[in-house]
Amino acid sequence: MDEFALIRRYFAPLSPAAAGVVLGIGDDAAILAPPPGHELLMTSDTLVAGRHFPLATASFDIGWKALAVNLSDLAAMGAAPLWFLLALTLPDPDEVWLAGFADGLGSLARKHGIALVGGDTTRGNLSITITAVGSVPTGTALRRDAARPGDLVCVTGTLGDAALGLRLNGFASRSPCAQSEHDLVALRARLDRPTPRLEAGLALPGLATAAIDLSDGLAGDLGHVLAASGVGADLQADALPMSEAFARQAEARDRLALQAAGGDDYELCVCLPPDHLAAARAAIAPLPLTVIGTISAEPGLRWQAADGARLKPELQGYQHFDGR
Amino acid sequence: MDEFALIRRYFAPLSPAAAGVVLGIGDDAAILAPPPGHELLMTSDTLVAGRHFPLATASFDIGWKALAVNLSDLAAMGAAPLWFLLALTLPDPDEVWLAGFADGLGSLARKHGIALVGGDTTRGNLSITITAVGSVPTGTALRRDAARPGDLVCVTGTLGDAALGLRLNGFASRSPCAQSEHDLVALRARLDRPTPRLEAGLALPGLATAAIDLSDGLAGDLGHVLAASGVGADLQADALPMSEAFARQAEARDRLALQAAGGDDYELCVCLPPDHLAAARAAIAPLPLTVIGTISAEPGLRWQAADGARLKPELQGYQHFDGR
Repeated sequence: MDEFALIRRYFAPLSPAAAGVVLGIGDDAAILAPPPGHELLMTSDTLVAGRHFPLATASFDIGWKALAVNLSDLAAMGAAPLWFLLALTLPDPDEVWLAGFADGLGSLARKHGIALVGGDTTRGNLSITITAVGSVPTGTALRRDAARPGDLVCVTGTLGDAALGLRLNGFASRSPCAQSEHDLVALRARLDRPTPRLEAGLALPGLATAAIDLSDGLAGDLGHVLAASGVGADLQADALPMSEAFARQAEARDRLALQAAGGDDYELCVCLPPDHLAAARAAIAPLPLTVIGTISAEPGLRWQAADGARLKPELQGYQHFDGR
Repeated sequence: MDEFALIRRYFAPLSPAAAGVVLGIGDDAAILAPPPGHELLMTSDTLVAGRHFPLATASFDIGWKALAVNLSDLAAMGAAPLWFLLALTLPDPDEVWLAGFADGLGSLARKHGIALVGGDTTRGNLSITITAVGSVPTGTALRRDAARPGDLVCVTGTLGDAALGLRLNGFASRSPCAQSEHDLVALRARLDRPTPRLEAGLALPGLATAAIDLSDGLAGDLGHVLAASGVGADLQADALPMSEAFARQAEARDRLALQAAGGDDYELCVCLPPDHLAAARAAIAPLPLTVIGTISAEPGLRWQAADGARLKPELQGYQHFDGR
């Protein structure tokens, strides 16, 4: 099957009539009408097979995750998703694989009303680049560079699940502890089908001062906020929110590494003034928003243990971990 | 050097203060203000090493070409370029390679005033996906689906140079004829540093009924216009415009295959009413606009030889050639 037949069969159904789409896939470029009074948000993320997902990952999950990681970036800016472009490089036009991929991509796209408007298919090692476009009312985007001393540092959801799911599925060392099948499935789902926090992101402009999505791990990603804002932070290691599956399956000595530097959380890290906390929690409920520390004027990222002792430098070093 | 240091060193200089760029690279997404009264054009194209360019290609040329093929899509829609995102997958952060790549990319970007606003860098086999954004006054984009019987079929520039340049440089069979170094350099430059016809594209709305850029070869690409418009075309094989280097170096029996199906021309194929021809030629001068045939109501693409005889079906079959 040639490129054009592939596009028609599997991807044309992901390009429905949608707001602002004057002309979708099928020409040299899409023609798009941006919403008046809004700014656009644009982001591109690439997933490479064997690097950003295990080679054996189901194609449904690859399609889902390729879009999810981009939507997570839009969520962190407080944006509503509009359109996306798909650049798909794959070794062979395998129809079973493609049907699953398009199904996973389309499931998440339909859930958030984002339309496929263009892209490219090429032959090569499996790799997916998606460019996603969203919008915010002009001037309301959440940025990294406006965190202020005294702000609370908060995270949505729970941290470390995807990293533990990856570890327990054979990419890294096996955990010696007893594992219930149920926990493994829950942890693995967080790795394979992350949930972009779009509703939370949309609710936060006006309440948060800064936000970032957690893709490389809290320590590294929050480090970008601190650097861009010219501030520092003091975090409580024991405050990092855990899922029940994580609490049961992770060994105590591994927890901070998995939660602070494991990556693939796709939660939001949000800075906000203390008097906005209650409103922010109400706005994103039932998704939990957990306070994990405080922004300070002193540069750097400092971790405290439950007894108030400062954690050793080698643990602080996780902020330089490069998960990719 | 980590990903963030790479970005800062080589790509931040390609993200100057530019029209509509509220926030460029460095956050989860770029913040962009679209020009009022305009529609946006968006396109993504991927280049894979060894498939879309020879492995030995200089990194300057790879950077140039990765942007050029996307700008060519914008040109075919009659758009002015605004912004682009770069998703770069490469095996190793080789600084010499990266400096050349950023230089080639930046040279073409500065020439057309298009700003880098975001993207991603990942490790893997060399592959580049660029998403380019342009704009047109609302309602004026050139599409594929509006060619009408009686329109002239025209092409800008010359055809076949890149395909011959590729063949004579060892990717395919070697030509047995004498080759001047000058011709080889000229042909190879058309392969490695294509010129997106942005000025011509900007001049054609209001004059042309349909346009497409020639990336896969005239026969296949014009075939998309014919299918989308529900028309056919009669083309004169001998009318296809040749460069002097091509005329000297290509064997007569190879010419139609190279010019109609070789690919990588990045010229525009334009359909327009006969009474718009003079104005279109004046508007894009000094770039030549050559009439190569006529749109007809009868579906299909038919080639005539100089003596009026219809060319054999196997030559017509080039329209199904898949250059990728």
